[in-house]
Parts: sequence; C-alpha cells; structure tokens
Amino acid sequence: MEDIYADQERLRGFCQAILGATGADAPSAVAAARAMLHASSLGVDSHGVRLLPHYDKVFRGGRLNKAPNMKFARTRAGSGLLDADNAHGALAAYAAADHACNLAREAGIGAVGISRTSHCGPAGAYALAIAEAGMIGIVMCHSDSFVRLHNGAERFHGTNPIAVAVPTQGSNPWLLDMATSAVPYNRVQLYKSLGRELPADAASDHNGLDTNDANAVEMLAPLGGKFGFKGAGLAGMVEIFSGLLTGMKLSPEILPMGGPDITTPRDMGAFVICIDPDGLVGRSLLLAGMDRYLTALRESTSREGTTVMAPGDREWAEATRRSKIGVPLDPETVAEFRRLSQGAKIAAPF
Amino acid sequence: MEDIYADQERLRGFCQAILGATGADAPSAVAAARAMLHASSLGVDSHGVRLLPHYDKVFRGGRLNKAPNMKFARTRAGSGLLDADNAHGALAAYAAADHACNLAREAGIGAVGISRTSHCGPAGAYALAIAEAGMIGIVMCHSDSFVRLHNGAERFHGTNPIAVAVPTQGSNPWLLDMATSAVPYNRVQLYKSLGRELPADAASDHNGLDTNDANAVEMLAPLGGKFGFKGAGLAGMVEIFSGLLTGMKLSPEILPMGGPDITTPRDMGAFVICIDPDGLVGRSLLLAGMDRYLTALRESTSREGTTVMAPGDREWAEATRRSKIGVPLDPETVAEFRRLSQGAKIAAPF
Repeated sequence: MEDIYADQERLRGFCQAILGATGADAPSAVAAARAMLHASSLGVDSHGVRLLPHYDKVFRGGRLNKAPNMKFARTRAGSGLLDADNAHGALAAYAAADHACNLAREAGIGAVGISRTSHCGPAGAYALAIAEAGMIGIVMCHSDSFVRLHNGAERFHGTNPIAVAVPTQGSNPWLLDMATSAVPYNRVQLYKSLGRELPADAASDHNGLDTNDANAVEMLAPLGGKFGFKGAGLAGMVEIFSGLLTGMKLSPEILPMGGPDITTPRDMGAFVICIDPDGLVGRSLLLAGMDRYLTALRESTSREGTTVMAPGDREWAEATRRSKIGVPLDPETVAEFRRLSQGAKIAAPF
Repeated sequence: MEDIYADQERLRGFCQAILGATGADAPSAVAAARAMLHASSLGVDSHGVRLLPHYDKVFRGGRLNKAPNMKFARTRAGSGLLDADNAHGALAAYAAADHACNLAREAGIGAVGISRTSHCGPAGAYALAIAEAGMIGIVMCHSDSFVRLHNGAERFHGTNPIAVAVPTQGSNPWLLDMATSAVPYNRVQLYKSLGRELPADAASDHNGLDTNDANAVEMLAPLGGKFGFKGAGLAGMVEIFSGLLTGMKLSPEILPMGGPDITTPRDMGAFVICIDPDGLVGRSLLLAGMDRYLTALRESTSREGTTVMAPGDREWAEATRRSKIGVPLDPETVAEFRRLSQGAKIAAPF
C-alpha cells in the first residue's frame, strides 16, 4: 500500500478536533497539533501526526490531564519552575519556552525546568518557537529507557534529545534537533518491517553487542560508536537537566510510553533555556555572524558526490516540498485515522 | 625512552616560574598552571603540562598579553561579556566562571561570553570550578579548524569542546569534557609516531574520506561516524556560542595555534553558563537525585568483560593514581622542560 498525502491545515484541524473529542481543552489540543504539525511538515515523521492515536488514547485513559492548571513559579530573575499538572508535553513545553523568553528578555538568559509533564514530542518545535522570537533556544527532554550506556548491556537512558535553534537573517533558523542515541527506536522498527540491515553502531542485542539485524535489537546504542561514551555523556546531561533539576523520575523509572498503564501520570521532566543575544553581543551582530558562518559552511568543500548542510537545511527543504505535496501518511496511520474519524464522527483529513 | 614521573606541586611551581620568567603577571601564571595541572592530574595529557613550552613561546612572542586588563560588563541580571584583553585562555575562562557563578547566585542562571581570548585549554577545568562552587557549569570553546563537516572534505570547525560539570554529594563531580570531533588531533599524531592504525570514523584523508592510516590524515571526523551530522551540529552550537555571541572569529578564520605568527592576538571566544540548583529544584534534591542516578548507572548491567562508567569516573581514578605516582612526562616534554629550565635558570621539576 502506498502513502496518502494530506493537506497540513486539514491535518491540523483533524488533530485538534480528535483531541477535543477526548475532552482535552482547546489549549491542549492546539499545542499538541502544533507540535505534531511541526514534525510532520519538516519530515520528522517519528514525532508527527502518527502520534495522534497515541495521544487520543492517553487523554482518554487519564494519563494526560485534559484541563491542566499549569503553575509557573519564578524563583529568580532568570529562572523558574513550571509545574505542568500532567499536561500534554507540547502544551507544557511551549508554555515553558514562552516563560524562558520572558525571563531572558529581562535577565539575558532564562532557565525553566518543567515538572510533571509527559511525552515531550519534537524538542526542536519548542527551540524553534524561541528562535522565531529572535532568541536562542535550547530544549532537553528525557524519555523512558531505550539506550544502553557505553559498554552497557541494558536499556538505561531514554533517547534524550537536545534541540538548539538560532535565528538567522531572512532565512530559516539554524535548527539542531538530535537524539543522543545514534538513531530513534522507530528507525529500528521501520528496518524490521522493511527487512533491511541496520547501519553499524546504531543498535544492540540483549548482550549489548551491536547488531545489523533489526530482529535481534533489544536496545539502541548511544551516539558515537566506539566513542559512545560521548553520546552517553550527552544523554546523561539531558537526564540531569530534565529529570533531576526538576525533581522528576529517571529514564529507567519512567512508565513506558506505550503502556499497558495509560492511566498513571508519568512524572517526566524537561528543560528549556533561552538566551537573548541582546544580553551578549547584540542581535544585529549575531545575525551578521550567522550569515558569515552559514555562507562559509555552504561554500566549504564537500566530499565528492555529496553536499554539506547546516542543521535544519534538510528539514527546511522537506518543509518546502511538503507545503506543496502535503504530508505523507503511512498505511497504518491512515487506518488509525479512519478509526478515529468514525469513532468521533469527525471527517478524515484525506 | 621511558616517561619520567614528576610531582604535581613541583610541576605547578615550575609552570608558574617559567611563565613568570616570560614577564607574565602572577594571575596569568597561576591560572595557566592551574588549568595545565587540572589536565595533567586527570590524565588529559593533551591539555596538560606539555603545553608549557607553547605558552612560554606565545607569551614571549606577544600573542598573549602578559598583564591583561580584563573588563567584565554585566549587561543584564544574568548575563555579561568579559573582554579578556588577549589574556591567557585559562585566566579568562576561570574569571568568566567566577562571574557566571555570581550572576547565577542572583539570577538563577548566568551566561558569560568571553571575547578576545586565546587557546582555552581544558574546558572541563572551568566547568569543574563551577561544580566545586556547588553549581552546574557548562563551558564551550572553539579553536582553529581541524574537523571536517559531515560530508565535508576540508577542515572547518575546531575540535570545539563542550564541558559540563555537576556537583555530587561527598564524591567527585560528574564531569563530561568532550571534543565534538571523535578524537583530538594529537591522538592522530600519537598513532603516527607509534605506527598504529587509527580506529574507524576518527579521521579523514584530503578527500574527506575516513582512513585508518595516521600518515594520510588531513582532518578529523566529527563525532558520530555515519551519524556525523550530529557531531558537526554540536560543533556548530559551540561555534555559535563561542565565536558569534561574543563577536569573535569563526574557527576557519582563527590563526593556527602552532604559528608561524606568534605575535598577533587570535580573537577567539568562549562561553560559560552557570546554573544555581537553588533557582530550580534546590541543591539538596539535586544532590539526592545525582546519588540515585549514579547508583542506578553503576549498578546497571555491562557488556561482558567491561564496566559502565559515569563521565569523569575514568579521570578521577587516574587522578587518584597520579596523586601517588606523579604525572608522566613524555621524552619530548622532558627535553623541552630541560631547555626551559636552562634558559630561565629555574630548576627542572624532576
């Protein structure tokens, strides 16, 4: 079966309506749809609209609070804690990004720890929201365990992404959004379903030994291959910021995203930092510098037959393509959307 | 020829005296020696006392200011810029760490951009100084070009390290200090002199193709092997913070560390962030969390015949060993130290 292409605004409306039908309030539905469409438009399908059936299930199950009363406590001029009251992770993270921007406008830099949140979704979405406000955003969030340590033979850290976004002059922001594992877990599932060999240094068997056989995979490998202590160290940094500076659980303590328990809140954390360039070199010098940097990068020599790209370049190109052709929906997602459409009596977006 | 082992305090005194003999003021000599001894005690010899002859040369040449008048301008409650007046990079970075701590105590988080600095030395030294003050430190610095981009075929970024240090309860800080390249450049030089094969995904020939032959190496590879876009993205983040938020040069624009020009200041930048846990979850909860995290990590299953370690564990063990046996000095460093000793009429530390 082939993918179906759906219009982004119809998808957004469908996501909001389906979540609204669970009883989730409008801010929750809007934020969740915004994060999913961020990912689906940029081609990061792992965090795109394929998550809608999952979110529908956990709103209905009670894991997520349909009408959260989030409370922000500013602790100092540049720092604060957002108690997300078990909100959808996107609602919490967009709110934290807003708070961090407000802190940074005053203090030059703002740090917001998010407690009692849930699945973060695409970390890059919230970093991008900060860059769109003209500032530099850093977002970290942890997840339940998927990734072994360097020399490890069990799942320990989550895929623990780091996202960084930096504004540019008249073009799309510089946007790094990376798991600290080599690949996301659904890449393994994709390769399994396609019967393809995994690349080296990406995933490991139950002994912690790397394997190309997607069927033998028990855990992901940290970024770096034989220098995986670096990827594991970065995952640890994300764990400390997301889980410990917020008083939340550690990755190995977090209930699995997929259930079976869909009623108990997951007590996850996340962390957002915003830097106002006007508290440092100043916005105009930063933008001029980004221009000089990106020009040098794009003009630098590439390996024969390849191209060098800045973080986000591939995604922005895909966003342009998808703005014309729509968002591809895999057959499983199409079937799930039909089920949701019938259940809620809301027209499918294709 | 075999290594000679030298006592750390004699080494510290020798480094300070040799730099003092160049005319460098006491704060410069003390800070430079402190950073070198940090690295030499932890086993990070690339940034240890083997740098003394280099620093001696560039203080004498005029690249480094022997009596810098560093100026800190606080721009907001949590941010500021340190104009390092072409000071030794360690003097600048320790001072920036102090300023960042002061900002963080008040604002919860502090960000200090360093302008007009020089070779940063071991980024972990300055992050550690922040952890020793009970807070979380992040230090980034760039260097002249050594590392290709993902798909790149020329040197572009520096080795652009990121260091993060987090206090713990009653044990050594959690200490991540990593280049965003897979290996440092002197690892290549070491393998060349030993006639050993380089590991995969570490370094590349003049076409940007990875090679195991140390003699064919023209550039380093970014961390991550075939996922090197992540290592290159992290290097870019370091470049933006160190070079652009400070108004300084880009890695490809920086004069090479090794000369031949040793008179012109290098216009490098660096960046320090300090987070006061009392502006977030609070120090006691962070420390209890670190204890829980490190216990879970150390008790987790490892690959047969290996051990899992937290960032810094290997270095702290080496520091214990070296506190007893001294710091190993390779034959080239011993010869250089003899030359410096004779030239300045200062007793060698062995």
